Amino acid sequence: MSELRITAVRSFCTQPAGARLLIVKVITSEPGLHGLGCATFTQRYRAVEAALEHHIAPLVAGRDPRDSEELWNLMMLNGYWRNGPVLNNAISGVDMALWDIKGKLAGLPCFQLWGGRSRPAAAVYGHAGGATVEAVAEDARRLLAEGVRFVRCQMGGYPGLGGPEAQRPEGAAPGRYFSPRERLEAVPRLFEGLRAALGDEVELLHDIHERLAPIDAVWLAKALEPFRLFFLEDILAPEDIRWFERVRAVCATPLAMGELFNNPQEITPLIAERLIDFIRVHVSQIGGVTPALKLARLCEPFGVRTAWHGPGDTSPVGMAANVHLDVSVPNFGIQEWARRTPLEYDMFPGLPEVRNGYVYPNDMPGWGIEFDEALAARHPCRDGNPSWTEARTPDGALARP
Amino acid sequence: MSELRITAVRSFCTQPAGARLLIVKVITSEPGLHGLGCATFTQRYRAVEAALEHHIAPLVAGRDPRDSEELWNLMMLNGYWRNGPVLNNAISGVDMALWDIKGKLAGLPCFQLWGGRSRPAAAVYGHAGGATVEAVAEDARRLLAEGVRFVRCQMGGYPGLGGPEAQRPEGAAPGRYFSPRERLEAVPRLFEGLRAALGDEVELLHDIHERLAPIDAVWLAKALEPFRLFFLEDILAPEDIRWFERVRAVCATPLAMGELFNNPQEITPLIAERLIDFIRVHVSQIGGVTPALKLARLCEPFGVRTAWHGPGDTSPVGMAANVHLDVSVPNFGIQEWARRTPLEYDMFPGLPEVRNGYVYPNDMPGWGIEFDEALAARHPCRDGNPSWTEARTPDGALARP
Amino acid sequence: MSELRITAVRSFCTQPAGARLLIVKVITSEPGLHGLGCATFTQRYRAVEAALEHHIAPLVAGRDPRDSEELWNLMMLNGYWRNGPVLNNAISGVDMALWDIKGKLAGLPCFQLWGGRSRPAAAVYGHAGGATVEAVAEDARRLLAEGVRFVRCQMGGYPGLGGPEAQRPEGAAPGRYFSPRERLEAVPRLFEGLRAALGDEVELLHDIHERLAPIDAVWLAKALEPFRLFFLEDILAPEDIRWFERVRAVCATPLAMGELFNNPQEITPLIAERLIDFIRVHVSQIGGVTPALKLARLCEPFGVRTAWHGPGDTSPVGMAANVHLDVSVPNFGIQEWARRTPLEYDMFPGLPEVRNGYVYPNDMPGWGIEFDEALAARHPCRDGNPSWTEARTPDGALARP
Amino acid sequence: MSELRITAVRSFCTQPAGARLLIVKVITSEPGLHGLGCATFTQRYRAVEAALEHHIAPLVAGRDPRDSEELWNLMMLNGYWRNGPVLNNAISGVDMALWDIKGKLAGLPCFQLWGGRSRPAAAVYGHAGGATVEAVAEDARRLLAEGVRFVRCQMGGYPGLGGPEAQRPEGAAPGRYFSPRERLEAVPRLFEGLRAALGDEVELLHDIHERLAPIDAVWLAKALEPFRLFFLEDILAPEDIRWFERVRAVCATPLAMGELFNNPQEITPLIAERLIDFIRVHVSQIGGVTPALKLARLCEPFGVRTAWHGPGDTSPVGMAANVHLDVSVPNFGIQEWARRTPLEYDMFPGLPEVRNGYVYPNDMPGWGIEFDEALAARHPCRDGNPSWTEARTPDGALARP
Repeated sequence: MSELRITAVRSFCTQPAGARLLIVKVITSEPGLHGLGCATFTQRYRAVEAALEHHIAPLVAGRDPRDSEELWNLMMLNGYWRNGPVLNNAISGVDMALWDIKGKLAGLPCFQLWGGRSRPAAAVYGHAGGATVEAVAEDARRLLAEGVRFVRCQMGGYPGLGGPEAQRPEGAAPGRYFSPRERLEAVPRLFEGLRAALGDEVELLHDIHERLAPIDAVWLAKALEPFRLFFLEDILAPEDIRWFERVRAVCATPLAMGELFNNPQEITPLIAERLIDFIRVHVSQIGGVTPALKLARLCEPFGVRTAWHGPGDTSPVGMAANVHLDVSVPNFGIQEWARRTPLEYDMFPGLPEVRNGYVYPNDMPGWGIEFDEALAARHPCRDGNPSWTEARTPDGALARP
Repeated sequence: MSELRITAVRSFCTQPAGARLLIVKVITSEPGLHGLGCATFTQRYRAVEAALEHHIAPLVAGRDPRDSEELWNLMMLNGYWRNGPVLNNAISGVDMALWDIKGKLAGLPCFQLWGGRSRPAAAVYGHAGGATVEAVAEDARRLLAEGVRFVRCQMGGYPGLGGPEAQRPEGAAPGRYFSPRERLEAVPRLFEGLRAALGDEVELLHDIHERLAPIDAVWLAKALEPFRLFFLEDILAPEDIRWFERVRAVCATPLAMGELFNNPQEITPLIAERLIDFIRVHVSQIGGVTPALKLARLCEPFGVRTAWHGPGDTSPVGMAANVHLDVSVPNFGIQEWARRTPLEYDMFPGLPEVRNGYVYPNDMPGWGIEFDEALAARHPCRDGNPSWTEARTPDGALARP
Repeated sequence: MSELRITAVRSFCTQPAGARLLIVKVITSEPGLHGLGCATFTQRYRAVEAALEHHIAPLVAGRDPRDSEELWNLMMLNGYWRNGPVLNNAISGVDMALWDIKGKLAGLPCFQLWGGRSRPAAAVYGHAGGATVEAVAEDARRLLAEGVRFVRCQMGGYPGLGGPEAQRPEGAAPGRYFSPRERLEAVPRLFEGLRAALGDEVELLHDIHERLAPIDAVWLAKALEPFRLFFLEDILAPEDIRWFERVRAVCATPLAMGELFNNPQEITPLIAERLIDFIRVHVSQIGGVTPALKLARLCEPFGVRTAWHGPGDTSPVGMAANVHLDVSVPNFGIQEWARRTPLEYDMFPGLPEVRNGYVYPNDMPGWGIEFDEALAARHPCRDGNPSWTEARTPDGALARP
Repeated sequence: MSELRITAVRSFCTQPAGARLLIVKVITSEPGLHGLGCATFTQRYRAVEAALEHHIAPLVAGRDPRDSEELWNLMMLNGYWRNGPVLNNAISGVDMALWDIKGKLAGLPCFQLWGGRSRPAAAVYGHAGGATVEAVAEDARRLLAEGVRFVRCQMGGYPGLGGPEAQRPEGAAPGRYFSPRERLEAVPRLFEGLRAALGDEVELLHDIHERLAPIDAVWLAKALEPFRLFFLEDILAPEDIRWFERVRAVCATPLAMGELFNNPQEITPLIAERLIDFIRVHVSQIGGVTPALKLARLCEPFGVRTAWHGPGDTSPVGMAANVHLDVSVPNFGIQEWARRTPLEYDMFPGLPEVRNGYVYPNDMPGWGIEFDEALAARHPCRDGNPSWTEARTPDGALARP
C-alpha cells in the first residue's frame, strides 16, 4: 500500500438533536479505508459545506492522506486568507478524517499514535441550572449523585436573562435581553449559596458567556475568588482578551477561555503570558486535531490545561476526537460533556460513553466511531438563523451573545 | 420614507479579468433604492456566496437598512463564531451596500457623509517589475513618466521564484518554488541599483509577500534601511506579527502590513504599540467600510497611515469604497492601484480613474458606481483552486504564499 | 496483543568511531518486538549506564510500553530531582525505544505517527575548516561540489586556539588555550573573505562554542550581521542566556542555541520571547523524542525552527530519530550531519544516508534502524575524561569549553 | 606542604536510617589529611557513585585540593553537559571535602574561613503533623514546649493524600493518590484553626510540595495571606516557576522555594526579580558549598534569606555544612532540621546538635564531623525505587511528587 490517494471528500449535514452537524468522510484509493471528521459550525454550516465541496475537496483529491501535516498546511494556505471559522471547520473535517485513516492504517486508536494513555478516562463536567440558588443546588446534587464531580452552575436562564420590559426605551428592538447589573449581583450570591449548600470540596464552574463589560468581568472574577471555582469561563469577548491582564492583577480565580477562538493571535499570547488557566477551544473551529494537539503541547510548559469545548454542537465524531486528546495529553484539565441523545448513539456507533463522571474512549482503530449515513439522511438539517445570538442590553443595544 | 426595509440581498459572481469578483446588491422596500458592495474573496468565493444566500440574506431581510452599525454587529455576532475571511466578506458585501444606500438617500457621495474631502484625490502607487535591476528601473521610469510618483518594485517574478530544480531533494512535490536566500541577496542589490539609477527622490516600495522566516525579515528590513523606502510591505506572515518588535528594535524602515488580517487581535496591538506605519488591510476582509473607517480613526492618534489593499481581486465596487475613504481621512497614506481592464470599466460604470498618479472619486451619490448585471452574467466565474499559493522552499516544504 | 509489557531494558556501550555511544534496547512480552533508543552522553556514559541498570530498568519493567507519555513522566518524576543530563539521557534511551516499538506495532515509520512528511528529506549542513580564509573557502567549495548547500565554517582549530605560550603568566596550568580577542578579530575577517570568495548566495554558518564573554558575543553577532549567516551558533554559555536580549537589541543576525540545554527554564523563555531563531538541542539530552516533538510544537507559533544537534556523539539511532523529526515537523530548519564511518553503517543497518545535501529516512517501521550487538561487542567503550573541555584563557583561567 | 595533591576520591553508600546516604572522602598526599563531603541523591545514588568512580575521581586525581574554585569549575565543565542532579551531587561530594580539607589545613572551622559567626547558632524549624487540626495543634505545642519556635504544620498525610478510591476511573493505576481540591479546602482551614489554637505570635510554616496546578497555588497563597506564615514552601513545581509573578501580583505571603533546583536558570531570575523570600536549595543538588556560598551572597542584595533544605536525605556531613553556612551569612533565614537517629550520631561523630530550637556547629577544624567507615559498612544501602514519587490525581494521571 505504498501508493495511497484521497479519492473523494464528502460531507453530510444531519440534525439528530438540536444542532446541525456536519460530518466529513474522506475516502481513499484503498478499498474500505476511509476516515470521519467533524466540520460542525452549526450556525453557518452551508458556508462550510460549500467550502468543502467547491474548494477543499478538489484541492486534496489525489494527494496522499498519510501526510496530514502537509495537507493541513496546504488547506490552510491555499485560500491565502485564513484563520476564520468557516474555513477552519472545513479543514477540520478533512484533518480529523486523516487521523482516523492513520489510526486505521496503524490498527491503533488515535490516542496511541500520540503516546498512549496518560489516564484511563477523562473527567467530565455536567451542567446544573435553575431559577433559584436552591434549585441550582438541587440540580447539582442530582449530578453529584450520578458520580459527576465537576458541575457548572448557572442560575436564571443561560447565561442569564435580564429585567422586565419596563426598563427598555421606546422602540427597543426584539431580542434576548439581559442585564449586566443583574448578573453582577446574582452570580456571587449564587456561589455563596452553593458553597453553603454543597460544602467546599465540590468542584464548581461557571460560564459568563462574555456578557459583561470588561471592567465588570474583572470585578466579578474578584468577587468570586473566595468561592474557589474550578474555573470561571468566558468572562471576556475575544475582542477584549487583553483585559485578562487586569483580571490577573487583582485575583487568583482560575480562568477558562477559548470556545470562540479561530486565530493564533487570540491564543498564543494568552498562553505564553499565563493569562488563562484552561484553554477551551472548539477543536473544529481552530482547524482540527493537528492544531489542537500542537496547542496542547504549547500549553504544557506554561502550566495551562485543556478543556475542549464540548456542547451539543460538537458532533459525536468531534467528541470522540476530544476524548482521544483528553486521555493522552498530560496537561488535560476537564472535558465538557453534553448528554447525547439515543438517536445520536444509534447514528454514531462507538460514541464514547460516560460512566461515573468519566468518559472513556474505546480501543478501536482511529477514532473508534462509525457513521450511519442512511439514518443521517433521514434526519436532514433544517435551515434557520439562531435567535439566541441576538442578545441585547436593557437599552436595546446589541451585545455579544 | 420613515419605513424602509431590506427586501433582498443578491450576490453576483463575475470574472471580467483574472479574479473572480463577488458583488452584493441590497434591495430595499423603496422602489429603485439599492446599494452595491464588494464581498470578493476570490479564492473561496463559493463559501461566501453560500454564507450570503443561506445565512446573511435571511438574517437582514426586513430590517432597516439605515441602521448600518446595528446591522454590522448583528451580522458579525449572529453566527457566534466570527472574525474570519468568509463571513467578513459576506458582511462586507452588505455593509458597503448599506453605505451606498445611505449616500443615495442623502444624495451625497459617501465621503461626504464622513466629513468631506481632506484632499481632492488619492495618490496611487504602481507596480514595476523585471528580471534584472535594469529592467525594473526601466519599468519604473515608464510609470514615473506617466505621473505616478510611488512605485513598487519587484525583481525576478513575484514575489520571487527560486533556484534550479537541482536544489530539490528526490520526491519533491510540484509547487511554486522560491528561495529565501536568493531574496535576501537580490532585494538589497535591487534597491542599491534602483537608487543609483533613479536617484534618491523617487518614492520606492517593496513587497516581501511574507516569504521569509521571521529573523530573515528582520535582517532584510535592516539591510534596506539605507535605501529609504516609502514602505516595505508584508515582511511577516500574520502568524508571526509579534516579530515586528524585533524589526523595530534594529531599524527605522517604514513598515506596511495587513492585507491578510481578519481579526482584531491581528490589528489593534500593532497600531497601539506603533509597530507598523501603514495599515494595509483588504477592506472586505475585515468586514467592510464600517470597520475600515473605524480602523482609520484608530490609526490617527498613533501616527499610522492607511494604504488599503487594492489589487485586481478587489472589485471595482471595493476600489470605489477605498477611494472614498482615501480622500476623506486625514491620515491617508497611499492607495495601491492595479490597472483595471476596459471590460471592467464597461461592467462598472463610474469606476474611479487614475490621472497623473492620482485616483479621483466621482461626485455621484453613494459610491458613485453602477453594475451591469447583464454584462456580468456573460462573464461568469470559473472554478479552480489557486496554484500560486502552493509555495515551496527548495527542500520541498510548503511555505506561506 | 492487548496485554503488552516491558520485560527488560538493556544498554550497550560501543565505540565504533571517536565517541562512546550508549544504545538502549527495550524488550517486550511480545516475541520479537523490541525498540532501540539513544542514551549517549559520551563524557559521562558510565553514570547513564548505572542510572539505566539500577534505577530506570526496574522502574519500567512490567509496564505497558505503549503508554510512552505516562512512562516519560514516570521516569522523569520518580527520582524527584530531575532535568539534568545523566537522567535525561537514560530516559531518552527508553523513550526513543518506546517510539520505535510503537512504529513497529503500527507497521509505520515514526514520522508517519506524527502526521507524515512535510518534506521528502532534510537538508544538512557540513563542516568546512582550515587554517586560513583561503583554506576554509577551499574546503567549503568541496562541500558545495558534493551538493551540500549549507556550510559551517571554522578557521584555525575548533572553535579556535589561542595565542603563543608567551602570553601566559608563570605557573599557568596545562589546558586547551584560546584567545577571545583573537576570535573577535578573526571571525569577521573569515566571513568577509568567504563572501568575497564564495558569493552572497551560499548559506554559511558559524559556531562560537560559547567561548566569549557576553558583551563580546553581542559585539561579534553585530559584526557578522553584514555577512548574513544562515545562523550563528552558541554565542553564549547556558549560564549567560539572558544576554540574548542584548544581542537582539543591536542586530538581526540569526541565532542558534541549545546543544547544552537540559532544563525547561533554559528553553521555554528563549522561545516564547523570540530570542533565538533555531533551537539546537541534543535530543537525548532533553530526554528523548517525546519532549523534542513537544519542543518543535512549542517553537512553531513563535517562528523558531529546529536544528537538532547531530555531531558524532549522537548515536546512529539518535540520528535516525532526528531525521524522522526533521521530515515531519513543518518548522524544521536544518540538520547538522557529521559523516559516519563505514563501521557505523555496518553496526547500524538502516542508518540514514545523505545524498546531494539531503538526508533521507527510510520507510521501515519505527526508526527503521537495526543494531548489530555482536559487532558492537567487538568495539567496546574505552574510558577516559575529555581534555578538550579543559579550555583556558591566556591568563590560565578555566573557561567554558 | 607547598606540594599537595589529591590522591584518591572514595565514596561510601550507607543507610543508617531511611535514606541512602552517599559520603565522599577526598584523600590527599599529606598523610592523615582528608575531607568529607555529601553527595546524597538518595533516589539515584548508583548513578552518582558511577559518576564519582569513573569520571570525577580520575579527573581530580593529582590536582591541588586547595584550588577548590578551579576544581569546582573543572568538574562542572569537563563533562560538557552540566547542571543536573547526578553530576551536581558528585561534584558536591568532592567540593565539600575540599572545604573540609581547607579547614583542617587552617586549623579552623569552615565558617571561620568565610568571616566567622554572624550568630552563635541557627534557629531551626520542626515538623508537626496530624490527621486533624486539633492533632496538628497538639503536635505543634509539643515542639514549642521543646523550645522550637518555628513549626511546619502539615495535616492529613504529607503532603496530603486524596479521596476515596470510588473517585477513580476504571483502570486507574496504582500510585499515591491525592486530591488538589481537598488541599485547597483543608489548608486554609488548618491555619485558621492553628491561629485560633496557638495564637498569632507563633511562627508557622507550610509545605505544598508542588502538588497544585499553578493557578491553584496562586489562589492558596492568597487564601493563606491572613494567617501570616513565616513562609509557604514549594507551591510551584520547578517547571512552573514563572507563575511566581502571578503569586506576587495578588498577595504578600512569604514564599520559600528551591529544594529541586539544579540549574542557574531556575535560581538567578527568581532572586534578581525578588519573586521569592527564602532560597531553599538542597546544597549538594546545586553542586556543594562553593555555589551555595555564592548563592547566599547573591541573595543578600535582593533581600532574600537562606533556608537550606535539610530533611533526612541530607547526610550528616551535608547538615554540618548547612549549619556552617547558617551561622556565617548575615542573610540566614531558618534551618530545616529533621531529627537524626542515635545510629547517625554514632556513625558521624560531631554531627551538630539542636538545643532549645537552635542548632550549633562545633569548633573543630573543617566541618567538625567524622565518619565511622566500619560502622557504615555494616549498614549498606538497599536498592529500590521510591514509590512515594508516583503521585496521582484522582483521575489516575501522574502528578509532580
